Amino acid sequence: MTVFPMTAPSDADEMALGRVDAWWRAANYLSVGQIYLLDNPLLREPLRAEHVKSRLVGHWGTVPGITLTYAHLNRVIMRNGLEVMLVTGPGHGAAALNAAAWLEGTYSELYPEVGQDEAGMAALFRQFSFPGGVPSHASPQVPGSIHEGGELGYSLAHATGAAFDNPGLIVACLIGDGEAETGPLAASWQAPRFLHPWRDGAVLPILHLNGYKIANPTVLSRIPSEQLAAYLRSQGWDPIEVADTAQVHRAYAAALDECLARIERIRRGTAHGAGRPMIVLRTPKGWTGPSHVDGHAVEGSWRSHQVPLTNVREDPARLDMLRQWLVSYRPEELFGTDGGPTPSLAAWRPGGERRMSANPRAHGQVQRDLRLPDPAAHSVAVTAPGEVTAQATSVLGDYLREALLRNESNANLLLFAPDEHASNRLDAAFDVTSRRWQLPTQDNDQYLSPTGRVVEVLSEHLCQGWLEGYLLTGRHGLFSTYEAFAHVVDSMVAQHAKWLLTAGSVPWRRPVPSLNYLLTSHVWRQDHNGASHQDPGFIDHILSKRPEVTRVYLPPDANTLVWVADHCLRTHGQVNVIVAGKQPAPQYLSAEKAAAHCAQGLGVWEWASTDGDGEADVVLACAGDVPTMETLAAVHVLAELAPDVRVRVVNVVDLTRLFTPGRHPHGLSDQDFTEIFTADQPVIFAFHGYPWLIHQLTYDRPNHDNLHVHGFRDRGSTTTPFDMCVLNDLDRFHLALAALERVPRLAARLGHLRQRILDRLAEHAECVRRTGDDLPAVRDWTWHSPHPDGANS
Amino acid sequence: MTVFPMTAPSDADEMALGRVDAWWRAANYLSVGQIYLLDNPLLREPLRAEHVKSRLVGHWGTVPGITLTYAHLNRVIMRNGLEVMLVTGPGHGAAALNAAAWLEGTYSELYPEVGQDEAGMAALFRQFSFPGGVPSHASPQVPGSIHEGGELGYSLAHATGAAFDNPGLIVACLIGDGEAETGPLAASWQAPRFLHPWRDGAVLPILHLNGYKIANPTVLSRIPSEQLAAYLRSQGWDPIEVADTAQVHRAYAAALDECLARIERIRRGTAHGAGRPMIVLRTPKGWTGPSHVDGHAVEGSWRSHQVPLTNVREDPARLDMLRQWLVSYRPEELFGTDGGPTPSLAAWRPGGERRMSANPRAHGQVQRDLRLPDPAAHSVAVTAPGEVTAQATSVLGDYLREALLRNESNANLLLFAPDEHASNRLDAAFDVTSRRWQLPTQDNDQYLSPTGRVVEVLSEHLCQGWLEGYLLTGRHGLFSTYEAFAHVVDSMVAQHAKWLLTAGSVPWRRPVPSLNYLLTSHVWRQDHNGASHQDPGFIDHILSKRPEVTRVYLPPDANTLVWVADHCLRTHGQVNVIVAGKQPAPQYLSAEKAAAHCAQGLGVWEWASTDGDGEADVVLACAGDVPTMETLAAVHVLAELAPDVRVRVVNVVDLTRLFTPGRHPHGLSDQDFTEIFTADQPVIFAFHGYPWLIHQLTYDRPNHDNLHVHGFRDRGSTTTPFDMCVLNDLDRFHLALAALERVPRLAARLGHLRQRILDRLAEHAECVRRTGDDLPAVRDWTWHSPHPDGANS
Repeated sequence: MTVFPMTAPSDADEMALGRVDAWWRAANYLSVGQIYLLDNPLLREPLRAEHVKSRLVGHWGTVPGITLTYAHLNRVIMRNGLEVMLVTGPGHGAAALNAAAWLEGTYSELYPEVGQDEAGMAALFRQFSFPGGVPSHASPQVPGSIHEGGELGYSLAHATGAAFDNPGLIVACLIGDGEAETGPLAASWQAPRFLHPWRDGAVLPILHLNGYKIANPTVLSRIPSEQLAAYLRSQGWDPIEVADTAQVHRAYAAALDECLARIERIRRGTAHGAGRPMIVLRTPKGWTGPSHVDGHAVEGSWRSHQVPLTNVREDPARLDMLRQWLVSYRPEELFGTDGGPTPSLAAWRPGGERRMSANPRAHGQVQRDLRLPDPAAHSVAVTAPGEVTAQATSVLGDYLREALLRNESNANLLLFAPDEHASNRLDAAFDVTSRRWQLPTQDNDQYLSPTGRVVEVLSEHLCQGWLEGYLLTGRHGLFSTYEAFAHVVDSMVAQHAKWLLTAGSVPWRRPVPSLNYLLTSHVWRQDHNGASHQDPGFIDHILSKRPEVTRVYLPPDANTLVWVADHCLRTHGQVNVIVAGKQPAPQYLSAEKAAAHCAQGLGVWEWASTDGDGEADVVLACAGDVPTMETLAAVHVLAELAPDVRVRVVNVVDLTRLFTPGRHPHGLSDQDFTEIFTADQPVIFAFHGYPWLIHQLTYDRPNHDNLHVHGFRDRGSTTTPFDMCVLNDLDRFHLALAALERVPRLAARLGHLRQRILDRLAEHAECVRRTGDDLPAVRDWTWHSPHPDGANS
Repeated sequence: MTVFPMTAPSDADEMALGRVDAWWRAANYLSVGQIYLLDNPLLREPLRAEHVKSRLVGHWGTVPGITLTYAHLNRVIMRNGLEVMLVTGPGHGAAALNAAAWLEGTYSELYPEVGQDEAGMAALFRQFSFPGGVPSHASPQVPGSIHEGGELGYSLAHATGAAFDNPGLIVACLIGDGEAETGPLAASWQAPRFLHPWRDGAVLPILHLNGYKIANPTVLSRIPSEQLAAYLRSQGWDPIEVADTAQVHRAYAAALDECLARIERIRRGTAHGAGRPMIVLRTPKGWTGPSHVDGHAVEGSWRSHQVPLTNVREDPARLDMLRQWLVSYRPEELFGTDGGPTPSLAAWRPGGERRMSANPRAHGQVQRDLRLPDPAAHSVAVTAPGEVTAQATSVLGDYLREALLRNESNANLLLFAPDEHASNRLDAAFDVTSRRWQLPTQDNDQYLSPTGRVVEVLSEHLCQGWLEGYLLTGRHGLFSTYEAFAHVVDSMVAQHAKWLLTAGSVPWRRPVPSLNYLLTSHVWRQDHNGASHQDPGFIDHILSKRPEVTRVYLPPDANTLVWVADHCLRTHGQVNVIVAGKQPAPQYLSAEKAAAHCAQGLGVWEWASTDGDGEADVVLACAGDVPTMETLAAVHVLAELAPDVRVRVVNVVDLTRLFTPGRHPHGLSDQDFTEIFTADQPVIFAFHGYPWLIHQLTYDRPNHDNLHVHGFRDRGSTTTPFDMCVLNDLDRFHLALAALERVPRLAARLGHLRQRILDRLAEHAECVRRTGDDLPAVRDWTWHSPHPDGANS
């Protein structure tokens, strides 16, 4: 690996490096102050116990690496007039980022109560990891950050996502050597295979080897330097190592200069075959902090990970160690009489939006609204329910093709998928774009191009992380994935939802476009892949997150899917989950009726109901495409077996409408709920997912005890599509039976009716056993209106 | 990269390779037959449409790579008498593994209805991906498999887990180049930093570059061979490439021979510094299948991923292509008149348990029960509730130390953690063992050793995958992790639970030791880390999985934790989740009372209740350590404010007891439930997790409308421990208020009582605002019995 410095610096360079060092000391001082001090921020009085916080929280170990990097990036930003964003993998060292933003003046601009003076410094210190203050992680409150850093592994994916379609931008990405052991980070190194050298921005990884995690050494810091270089080079990078702590400023500056020169060559297209530049930074953990405590090495050891000096209020010797540590940064040289940075230190910063802490992209301020087509123009013609068959996601693909076309010049829409885009029937997009791919292509390849707007890699983690980075910098996207494997990113979406929730109350952040999921290849049509592909629980996970930021939609057919997707692509600040099928299925609603139904989120389907103007004996409710089909078929079964039973059909698209209003902003009032589901009649609810989710949503609804949910009970594995329903009691026959059993006036006939249904089920079972396929009657079922005079009236 | 073959083979080798080829052809024939044929398995009649399945499902593309690898492994197993297990990353090619097991005779031994004759072959074909048959993935029904392969990314981690503490074993691991793009697989390559060269078994990765995923080329197949070699070498491997398709058998055989020689040298300790051997196998996707269909290349293309020939029943030309494809393997040379393999083919297999399809470790048959200490011997002395303070996980650490000691000679217990073992206060283990680590150590390191029994890597995916591989081969373990980040492995545990459920009905599999989680550093004590570390939803996820295999425990103190952990370590075939705190907290139950309480799973704590022999006005229920503490404190608040209110305290340890019996085997009868929670009194339930989980468990219980759950509502972020409770209404004051509000006879006094509670809350808020810390009264709260005559009576 190239190791810097290689040449002696000039006098001018030395002067610049002196400023870097001063800035670094100032940022370190301010970081230590945040962790420890409640008052007396400049030590202008003798340091006393009561100046120290009673609960010492924060992470010191990673701070000096962050501040060092920040200082050196500022040097080149100023010199070259660059636009740089910083993604901080070790986001738990947020004290460093707060310090940097305060030194740059951004903090005081965004938080006027934290001025650039002694009182402001005291406020900065006090609020850190303090009740009512700011977290010790790089939360949305931290200026310039798009990355929290609490759950490790996503920094490089976020940086890559931020770089897509941002050609002028450099996204510096500090990666901890602990984080580098995670799966998502390990996979992220392959980014150069997907990032265009000049149509996308440049990602500049800085792998910080400080050697230790919480309590263990790190793998990458303990392998030979050449092995590490080979690891990085083999994934498309060209690393430069900075390891000379005695001359760290010279080495870091020279390495950064070289990286920028290489980035420039790559952008000009004159660096054929070269890897993308990056830096490997070796400095001691907790550098410049206490060297030893109680005879144990702390600097350069895992012991500096959190708070290196504890018991400071109680132990005067420790208090004095803290004082010496603070004084070692020579604050009197760094801060003026008013407590702000000295004029020369204050002036040493990039201007305005060039400050990394003030980057408008990081604050979601750079956005262009999508130009979206009219959903009605991409609909299936449905004159009457059930007349046509279509593949819902394929129809959506047509809409997305048009959306890609309309936004091509803005380059602000990307579709992500883990090698499933075509499998999920969204391939119409390939009429107008390709898959983004920088590696060589071969004859048998299809739809690959270095600038494609479909991004496919067989990693849900990368799809999610890249999309998050893309959205957090103000652009738009959709992530389509097999429903079962959405769980791979459970933890990532939970973190993103938390980010959105907090960001929503940070006034200088503009709400960013929503994170949109299309879950398809869903549980009811994974009969051929078996149990591992059958899990509808992602929506349960989503609905356990804060209602302010979560939405779940189950459009029953193609036109409702297109309407919902269009709606979701127009929203901001949310996580939208859409579940829809890709198989040929009956269509129910015209574009116009789909729009009306989806806008309500749920409603009675009178055209499918048989309760006329009278009172229903039973409500058949449904959510999801397969449950809707089975529910409508159950109406037929009931009409045939017991034509006097009055059935009301309710379809739910927006699942969150089932919540009471206090639990979700979309929640239906109890009065409206009762109007739809009746006050006291039995409700048989055919649900796409786990049945208990519906109970969780509705346990506090009137008439809840009369609600009977049929859904996925983890039965089935390998069988036929219809048999999947049968095994989970979600098929038309079980639904009809459940309805019949709950109509009291049928009691006398029930035995007979039940037997007729069991006969049907036996006929089905025999056919499946014999042929391996479903009865033609259920396989090719089509809807016939119970209202011959006008089904869709 | 070394590329084989390098030398010409001998005549004897050629003969052996002829057998390899015959076996390969036979396995391919049998795989194609499984995908396509319903009958006429040996083509002894002219192939007609009705011989073909009506639903064609399965994955052909990966099959020839699996069968080729299986054949070559068999060659060396026979020659060298090796014990080899095979983990198949592309487990969706299960047809290949079924074929291999049938050829080896194992299939017919385990499934007598699938004999080694024509009728058996027909049964083998028909059942594949057929209703009532076996899945198209390497499910638990597949002999020799421990890996389903449906959700990609875990093969190498499973293989590594299987190799830990199995010194004689070679775990061959076929890795797809699609799977290699996932995060977990990318991280898994670092296994040599953790696997002992001879105290553990050898993992032999075979990276199969067939070039394509479902629809895209793969990254690793498109980078230069030398770059790929550097990637693998830099992570501790020494790859050999097999790419000569014209001489594939010679090349593969020579490469395997070289790998085995290197494994032997490593085991003898004479291969200092060398990487671990592995193979890079380049063969075309869908090799030996149809070359072109409709003018499109299929062999060597993504088009061979699933079923390369469709529409076979309908199109006679396609039917003939299928016939030609089958005939190309020359079945008449491979199968005798009875339809079984010819005598020479049948004889060409390893003996008995040396067959990979009959490996007893893969079937969970090699197990040694843990020798566990008496939990009571590792308990905290608690003479009366609240008298002592202890850290629950630290007490468990003491128990685990003893467990490690007692099982050291059996080498069948490992503890896994993502760099959190010591942070989670389990460090007593380091009195008797260390962390497993093969890289160089330095002065500041602590507790590292190449043979340590604590396995730490900063990847929840690796901890989970390694532990799963260890358990699936019959050994025991515990995974301790921060509660919030358990979501990282949501999808993995869902897949493992599905495996356990299915495996439970496969008679030749012995139930393997349970997957045990200790979730600590939990939501209520992440006040300092903030929002990203606050998520109690992993138990929601677990409880959405099948009740047969899922258990969740919330022990309220140290002695209950030790009892529960001891119980879990003794179970098999389950996923056990234990949630417990690591902070100093009051202790309530002696070892004896803890045992009785945990055995019941829940119960009335009479010693904490104030309802005497009469009827309670209100039930205060609790689950989790912090909710229990706040509930007991609420009893004090109530006793002070309204001493006439009669309170019953119920504590729940085993959460699944709240289910009705039909929903979970641990479910309490409605009668017992009513006896504990009363028939009609209000229940204020203080819960560790999301409140709606309790409603989901109990929506079908009598008196459910009277149940009021307080739990985590995602409020808090950075604050004090007690303030976390206050912000989520889980603190003693809110609990007391909730109780008071629901006792009708207090109505007249309620305004006054409410004000007194609000005053307390205001006092708390003021203290936090001023000092950043909790009121001493709540910070150092200790339990005082409401029964002065004998608290624990």
